[in-house]
Amino acid sequence: MEPYELTATQASALIAARKLSCEELARSTLDRILARDPEVRAWSWFDADTIIRNARELDKTPPRSPLHGLTFGVKDVIDTADMPTQHNSPIHVNHRPGQDAACVAVVRHSGSLIVGKTDTVEFASGGRRAVTRNPHNPAHTPGGSSSGSGAAVGDSQVQLAFGTQTGGSHIRPAAFNGIYGIKPTHGIVSREGAKMYSHTLDTIGWYGRSVEDLQLVGSAFRLPGSDGHPGAGTVEPASVKGLRVGLCRTPVWQAADAYGRAALMEAARRLEAAGAIVRELTLPAEFDGMDAAQQTVMRGEGRAAFLPAYLGSHHLLHEDFREMVENARGISPAQLVQAYDLAAACRRLFDGLFGADLDVVLTPPSPGEAPQGLQDTGNPAFNAMWTLLHVPCVAIPVGKSARGLPLGIQLVGPRFADSRLLAIAAACAPVIHENGMLGEIEVDEAMAA
Amino acid sequence: MEPYELTATQASALIAARKLSCEELARSTLDRILARDPEVRAWSWFDADTIIRNARELDKTPPRSPLHGLTFGVKDVIDTADMPTQHNSPIHVNHRPGQDAACVAVVRHSGSLIVGKTDTVEFASGGRRAVTRNPHNPAHTPGGSSSGSGAAVGDSQVQLAFGTQTGGSHIRPAAFNGIYGIKPTHGIVSREGAKMYSHTLDTIGWYGRSVEDLQLVGSAFRLPGSDGHPGAGTVEPASVKGLRVGLCRTPVWQAADAYGRAALMEAARRLEAAGAIVRELTLPAEFDGMDAAQQTVMRGEGRAAFLPAYLGSHHLLHEDFREMVENARGISPAQLVQAYDLAAACRRLFDGLFGADLDVVLTPPSPGEAPQGLQDTGNPAFNAMWTLLHVPCVAIPVGKSARGLPLGIQLVGPRFADSRLLAIAAACAPVIHENGMLGEIEVDEAMAA
Repeated sequence: MEPYELTATQASALIAARKLSCEELARSTLDRILARDPEVRAWSWFDADTIIRNARELDKTPPRSPLHGLTFGVKDVIDTADMPTQHNSPIHVNHRPGQDAACVAVVRHSGSLIVGKTDTVEFASGGRRAVTRNPHNPAHTPGGSSSGSGAAVGDSQVQLAFGTQTGGSHIRPAAFNGIYGIKPTHGIVSREGAKMYSHTLDTIGWYGRSVEDLQLVGSAFRLPGSDGHPGAGTVEPASVKGLRVGLCRTPVWQAADAYGRAALMEAARRLEAAGAIVRELTLPAEFDGMDAAQQTVMRGEGRAAFLPAYLGSHHLLHEDFREMVENARGISPAQLVQAYDLAAACRRLFDGLFGADLDVVLTPPSPGEAPQGLQDTGNPAFNAMWTLLHVPCVAIPVGKSARGLPLGIQLVGPRFADSRLLAIAAACAPVIHENGMLGEIEVDEAMAA
Repeated sequence: MEPYELTATQASALIAARKLSCEELARSTLDRILARDPEVRAWSWFDADTIIRNARELDKTPPRSPLHGLTFGVKDVIDTADMPTQHNSPIHVNHRPGQDAACVAVVRHSGSLIVGKTDTVEFASGGRRAVTRNPHNPAHTPGGSSSGSGAAVGDSQVQLAFGTQTGGSHIRPAAFNGIYGIKPTHGIVSREGAKMYSHTLDTIGWYGRSVEDLQLVGSAFRLPGSDGHPGAGTVEPASVKGLRVGLCRTPVWQAADAYGRAALMEAARRLEAAGAIVRELTLPAEFDGMDAAQQTVMRGEGRAAFLPAYLGSHHLLHEDFREMVENARGISPAQLVQAYDLAAACRRLFDGLFGADLDVVLTPPSPGEAPQGLQDTGNPAFNAMWTLLHVPCVAIPVGKSARGLPLGIQLVGPRFADSRLLAIAAACAPVIHENGMLGEIEVDEAMAA
C-alpha cells in the first residue's frame, strides 16, 4: 500500500509512531496528484516545491496533534497565507490574500500539510463551473461547488479537504465522489477568511475517507463533546443495535431519481438487518416551505456579498452575481423576514423530534447519480433545508450505479450534537458502506417508489 | 468655516458643484487631525502623504457618487488594502491584509477618501482598551469598542467613520461623542473582511454628523427602500406631528443613571411638544431574557472566532480571549440553542409591535454619561438586546451633562425598515437635538425615576 492510500487516521498513527515521515507521505501524495491531475483536474493551484518543503519542516518537530503531516486540500474560496485564492473568478486571478482563513489556521497550527487549492464553482455560488471531473467516471460532474475538494479526496489525492455549503455544495459532492463528509452545526467553525455568500447559510465542512477521519478533524475544531467541553447529549459509544433511525424522504422526495431512492432504501435495509429500528419520519407541514425559504435567504443575502465586486469590477463579475445584486428576483424584505422566521421555527421543531423515539435521521444527500457533463453540478434540493436548519449532516457512501458513479446517504442530527452524530455515523458506516466496498446498487422501482 | 467642519452632506454638495476640491477637504482634515491627535488619539494609523495623494487622484475624475471625496475613518478591525489592520492586538502589529473589507470597498468604489484606521478595543471585544480620549472631556472614555471612530467624528476630524457592534460597541460611542450613528439591520452590510467575533451579532455601522450624513452612506449600501429596491414599509416623508413613539425603558432600566433617564425624558418631552404621540412601551416578558441571551451567544460564538489565534499565537492573546476559547463560563450547547431560539421568538414579537399604534421606539443608547478614565468603556446593557434582535438603531444627540459630556437617545425600528427609520430620525433630529445645540440637560430625579 502506498502512503497516499492511507486514511488520515491510519497515517496519523504511523506518523505518531515515527513509522512514516511527513515527507514520505507528501512525496507519495505528490506522485498521485501528478499522475491523476491531467484527468481529474481537481486543483486550481499546487506547487511541488512548497509541498515538499513544508513537509520537511513538519518532520523537524514532534507531532503537534493527530493531524500532524496529514494532507489537506483547501477549496479555493478559502484564504491561504502562502497560496493564491482565486474563487474561480477573473477578478481574483493570482490574488494572494496573505493570511490563512480561520479554518486553515486551525489545521495548519495542528500540523496539517496544506497541499493546495481545489477548484470550485465561481465564488462557491454560480457563474463559472469548476473544470474538475468525477474521478469515478470522467464524463460526469463531481458535484459543486466543492468540486475539486470532493474529487481530490474521492480520488485519494489527499486525505482531507475543506469544502463549504450554502445550498448543497458540501454534502452532495461527498455523495458523488464516494467519500465521507461532515457539514457541522452552523457557527461551530469560524468562516472568517472564506468568501462570504450568505451569512445565515455559509458553513465550512470537511471531507475524509472514513468517519474516523472526520472525527480527527472535529477534535481540532473542538466540536462540542469532542474535547471534554460540554456536549449536546451524551457521546456514548453508539451501536447500530437498537439505534432509532428516522427514514426521512423530505418534502422534495419527488426530485429523487431511482438510484437515489434505491440507495436510501438499501442503507435502511442494511441498518435494519444490523439491528437498527428504522421508522418513517414525516416532517411537520412547516418544513414544506423550507426549500423556498433557503433560496430566499441565499439570494437575499447574496446582494450584500457581491456589492463590492459589482461596484469595483462590474465587467468581470458574472451575470449571475450582477442579477443578485440588482435583486432581479425582487426578493422583498418581508419575504426575507418570513424566511428567517420560518427557519427559526423549524430549527426548534426539528431539535424537538430527537429524544425518546429518534436518534438520527437518514435521508438522501442528492437526488441520485452525478449528472453527466460539468455544467450541471446537481440539484441541491436534498441539502438546502438542512443547511438552513443549521444542523450537522454526515455523508456516507452506500454503493455505486451501473455507470460506476457513487451513491450515498446522509445522517442528520440536532444542532450541536456533532460529536454524537459522528459517533452514530462511526457505528453505522461499516454497515451502510459494507466495510468500504462500493458494490453496485440494484434499482428496484417498487421498493424505491 | 473650514472645510473639515462641513458635514458630509454639505461637503458632498460643494464637491458636486466643483466649489470644493477633494484635496482642499483632505488638507483641512489633515490639519485638524494633526492639531487634535495628541489630545484625542483617535487614530491607530494614518499617513499624510497617502491622504493627499489619494485626494488628488479623486480630483482627477468626475464624482463617482455623492460620497466622492468625503472623509472616512475605518475602525481598526476592518481590513484596508493600503493600510495596516492591527486590531489593537500584539499579534497583528503592522499587519497588512492587502485587500479591502467589503464595507470599505463599497465606500471606496463610491469615491470616499479613506483617511486612516481608528483605535479600538482589542479585536472589538475585550482585552486591551483604545488609548482614545473623549474629545468633549479627555478625562473620560469615548466609549468602546469603536472608540477612535466615535471620537474622530465627534471631534470633527472626519465626516464619517465605520464602527462595529457585537454588544454595544457602535451606538454607545455615538452617544458618548455627541454624534449620529446607525447600526443597520443585521446582514444588510457584508461583514466580510472585518474581524469576526460573533456571527449572529457582529454588525457594521457608521457615524456621521447628521441623519442626512447617515442616509448618504446608506444609499451606497442600497439599504432597502433607499434606491428603488423593495423597502420594508413606505419611506414617506416622515413628520414628527402625529408620529407614534414608543418610550421604551427596556428590562435593564435600573442600569440607567440620572443623566441617562433625564436625556430620554427630555427627548420624549421635546417630541411631544412638537406633536408626536409618545406612549410608554413595555416589552413582553420574553424580552427579560434577552440580555443574558446576548452574552451567551457572544461568548459561545467567540470560541470559534479566537481558536486560530489561541493555537497559533497563544502567548500574545489576551487572557480574555483564552478564557473564551476554553469556555471558562461553561456555556453549554443547550444554553446556546435556547438563546438562539429566544432571540428568534423575540425578533418576531418585536416586529409585530409596529403598525397601527407604533412608528418608532425611543430608548436609551447608554446608561448615561461616559465613565471616567479609559478602562471602563461603558455598560452595553442598553445595546445588547437590540443587537441580538438584528433591528436597525439610530443614535441622536440630546444635550450634555454638567461635565460637558454628550447625552443621547436611540431610535429603533423593525428589521429591514432602515430607510424608514432614517426618514423618521431625520424628522426627529432637529427636535431632539435642538438644531445641533448640545445644551445642558437638567437632572430631574422625580421625572426620571
